[in-house]
Amino acid sequence: MLSDLAIAKQCQLQPIETIADQVGLDQAFLEQYGKHKAKVSLDVMETVKDNEEANLILVTSINPTPAGEGKSTVTVGLAQAMKQLGHSVSCCLREPSLGPVMGLKGGATGGGYSQVVPMEDINLHFTGDIHAITAANNALSAFIDNHIFQGNELNIDVRRITWKRVVDLNDRALRQVIVGLGGVKQGMPREDGFNITVASEIMAILCLATDYDDLKKRLNRIIIGYNTSGDPVTVEDLNVGGALTLLLKEAFKPNLVQTLEGVPAFIHGGPFANIAHGCNSVVATKMASKLTDYVVTEAGFGADLGGEKFLNIKARQANLDPKAVVIVATIRALKMHGGVKKDQLNEANVEALLDGLQNLKKHTETIAAFGLPFVIAINKFTADTDEEIQALTTWCQDHGFKVALTDVWAQGGKGGQALAKLVVETIEEEQATFRPLYHLEMTLEEKIEAVAKKVYGATHVDYSTQATEDIARLKEQGYGNLGVCMAKTQYSLSDDPMKLGRPEDFTITIRECRPSIGAGFIVCLTGDVLTMPGLPKEPAALKMDIDDQHQAIGLF
Amino acid sequence: MLSDLAIAKQCQLQPIETIADQVGLDQAFLEQYGKHKAKVSLDVMETVKDNEEANLILVTSINPTPAGEGKSTVTVGLAQAMKQLGHSVSCCLREPSLGPVMGLKGGATGGGYSQVVPMEDINLHFTGDIHAITAANNALSAFIDNHIFQGNELNIDVRRITWKRVVDLNDRALRQVIVGLGGVKQGMPREDGFNITVASEIMAILCLATDYDDLKKRLNRIIIGYNTSGDPVTVEDLNVGGALTLLLKEAFKPNLVQTLEGVPAFIHGGPFANIAHGCNSVVATKMASKLTDYVVTEAGFGADLGGEKFLNIKARQANLDPKAVVIVATIRALKMHGGVKKDQLNEANVEALLDGLQNLKKHTETIAAFGLPFVIAINKFTADTDEEIQALTTWCQDHGFKVALTDVWAQGGKGGQALAKLVVETIEEEQATFRPLYHLEMTLEEKIEAVAKKVYGATHVDYSTQATEDIARLKEQGYGNLGVCMAKTQYSLSDDPMKLGRPEDFTITIRECRPSIGAGFIVCLTGDVLTMPGLPKEPAALKMDIDDQHQAIGLF
Repeated sequence: MLSDLAIAKQCQLQPIETIADQVGLDQAFLEQYGKHKAKVSLDVMETVKDNEEANLILVTSINPTPAGEGKSTVTVGLAQAMKQLGHSVSCCLREPSLGPVMGLKGGATGGGYSQVVPMEDINLHFTGDIHAITAANNALSAFIDNHIFQGNELNIDVRRITWKRVVDLNDRALRQVIVGLGGVKQGMPREDGFNITVASEIMAILCLATDYDDLKKRLNRIIIGYNTSGDPVTVEDLNVGGALTLLLKEAFKPNLVQTLEGVPAFIHGGPFANIAHGCNSVVATKMASKLTDYVVTEAGFGADLGGEKFLNIKARQANLDPKAVVIVATIRALKMHGGVKKDQLNEANVEALLDGLQNLKKHTETIAAFGLPFVIAINKFTADTDEEIQALTTWCQDHGFKVALTDVWAQGGKGGQALAKLVVETIEEEQATFRPLYHLEMTLEEKIEAVAKKVYGATHVDYSTQATEDIARLKEQGYGNLGVCMAKTQYSLSDDPMKLGRPEDFTITIRECRPSIGAGFIVCLTGDVLTMPGLPKEPAALKMDIDDQHQAIGLF
Repeated sequence: MLSDLAIAKQCQLQPIETIADQVGLDQAFLEQYGKHKAKVSLDVMETVKDNEEANLILVTSINPTPAGEGKSTVTVGLAQAMKQLGHSVSCCLREPSLGPVMGLKGGATGGGYSQVVPMEDINLHFTGDIHAITAANNALSAFIDNHIFQGNELNIDVRRITWKRVVDLNDRALRQVIVGLGGVKQGMPREDGFNITVASEIMAILCLATDYDDLKKRLNRIIIGYNTSGDPVTVEDLNVGGALTLLLKEAFKPNLVQTLEGVPAFIHGGPFANIAHGCNSVVATKMASKLTDYVVTEAGFGADLGGEKFLNIKARQANLDPKAVVIVATIRALKMHGGVKKDQLNEANVEALLDGLQNLKKHTETIAAFGLPFVIAINKFTADTDEEIQALTTWCQDHGFKVALTDVWAQGGKGGQALAKLVVETIEEEQATFRPLYHLEMTLEEKIEAVAKKVYGATHVDYSTQATEDIARLKEQGYGNLGVCMAKTQYSLSDDPMKLGRPEDFTITIRECRPSIGAGFIVCLTGDVLTMPGLPKEPAALKMDIDDQHQAIGLF
């Protein structure tokens, strides 16, 4: 079997102008980055403002497992299938972070015959968006420390600086650091830490801002910490909102690439789906929505994390009106949710499969609660047995769920046609009545509980002393009306990553609530959520190289 | 008077294909980044290998002062003048670092009517080269700390890790840090520090490597620290040379842009001229040399720093054969070298000017010692008086020096025609006999002394205990045959930044010698050389923004 990189290299890519032409995107709005990538000027929006909005399809999944679900692969494969069926379609994905690419994943651009290309560019530096966010985030840190060094007019309390530095790498040694050592010429010693860039509030802002004006306003609203009186200090107070906006000027433009079958793909933004909302940028999704009849987009991790945030945060803030949801599962992953260990996944196990389906069941209830119709996509793996597939199909029929087996990894769009037909039929026949799961006027506790109970299935929410204090302070400062962005493990519906399947009778503990005022939400941390991953013992990077033709090796 | 940014915006830029056409560069080798920037594939070198080498002109200067000399401006202006005179010409410059742009400088792309454009892109993220170097540098740090965390098979001594992290910012709070705090799950606590990216050995490597193969070999040779037995640990030992090469795959390709008058400009690489060699990349200089009859390039800081390193390091390693040198000075800066304070520079002062000329005199002796003919370029400022200009001209005539007054800032190429004619005449009439100032077979001490005495004019070299130990160890490890890269203040010929003019009877103290084996030299630190600048009280960033048309504001 060919590697993803080998398949991607076999593909005869079309010039990016041809892809743009397909959707009526005038070349005047393109800025090429090589022959197969382009940034698209936001000026195009004025010219397409009277176009109808596309039917927006969200691809989400069960709780991820080490077995792999292939959500990006299904997203790309579905879009390719819709194109094969004659529909006008585009897809909207997130930009891979270099950290996981160099660490475990080796790539994040779909797989097999359902990939976005040029995969090696997209997986590495792409058009530099994430690097620009790193630069803006760390410039802000430098401005903060310089402000303190130069006299600290704003009386910033060095013990209460909440703004962290970032690198777009998995680097656990940077989680907790002390900076400013070396005496009076080097600044003020203080505790600090680094997040991975995709966990930066600036990434969340870039992905939620609707235009440059909104981008600058959001950047100015960022709270970097507190002064010695306990009042918030913002980017606006530091007078650097303009400089940060300038640093993000190009990064804010959506990127256009293509799938292996020539579907236009807008890959833009890549916020973490725990600490942030985990979705493609609003500007990219809106642009795609004006250019094609259908837009297929994905959200990070499972329906309880990225899916919930796509609907409660992104769709609400951006006035999006999703028409249908695809919930991706694999028989392997469902068996893990049913208690099978990773090394036994190749053995048929219908009983475990049926147990594991409780995880899928919960996510279907969640999507229904948002007022949205859904289709279940079973992403086929070679070890799946007919008996297992039959058991799953029967289970879906018994529940009245639409389900399609997809084989987009091996067959590209052809392997997704059954799914595509079901999705189109669902949009045409079922009326979506999208509504967020909570009103912004509710209290922060009510909003947290709405997500914890309706989405996770928790019976109870506990608050640490810190979280109770945080919530009181946030309400006092006038931030009680913002949405909540729950930071939770992706592996479980609960806040304990070991509890697979559908945990019951559990409590969600809110450890801390942090204001992300620029992004427009309150981050509520549950359990031990890491905002800086570590590298494994054998990082994917050890296999990376260039060959004699100066082409990439080791990406997958 | 219009700002640099306003002048740059008035310019009608040519499509980058047109600029490439001018020098016979086939479009197949171009990868566009927007309409006015392109990366050029190194594959072009095979097609032009039989072309004659260009006449290479190095632009250097007296020791820089806060009065400003305008070396980049003269480099661009000279190339524009040569084009006006009908010559086939290109220029080779360094990429601006974001740190100084956001800090003091606000930009580094020449000035007035002698700029490279699009200046806002070049000054900000450009084609992402420096970000790629940041990523590669910090990925190496993450690999080192992960190796230790995962069991430390190589027995790396955490107290002797010499590889530092980097950010492309001025951020003094990161000069000395402690990483790895937080307990057993976060790694091993240790001292670390951040350099500015342009001070990374990876930047020096990218600028000296001759092809991909050489790039990878150099990366593998980097010493990241020492094991508990005191032996060097390299990138090759960590098995990540391939991954670092892959991360630099695109960054290694030269960037093509244009000057305001349409001269092709290869802007590539930007190593610091103290800790590194401070020159445009070898691949860019060699590419330009095969495409035009004349190549004008610059080196960082004065002739004692960047100039010396261009000749002793870059030209030697890359077998370049420079034909002439331009030494830039201004009457203002010469008066500062003659003892005038910055706020009194607008007053005529022939006596101070004549005193200050001793600084210029030393640099002419240095260039002559390298066997190269030179022309002095006086970069005109509006406050210069006729009397001062006359005194300077007379001084040059008395010494038999060629001199031209240039006004390229206000007049573009037209203001550099006198200089251009002199330079061409010099190349045609004077035979350059370039020779480095020391042989590699000399001992490290002899090489250090050759530079200290012949270039700086020192009478004596002192070595700290540390430096003495360093040199002994380096010789023992077999690195005694490398060149020396002197890290010294740019403001003085001595290692004391307060000693302007031409200091005499002084000693250079070597504080420390560090191996940069990938770059292929030993860095010898004198005085207090900072590898991470700080921000001023009012950073240039405070004035930066975007306007209603989403165009940059505040770059200059």
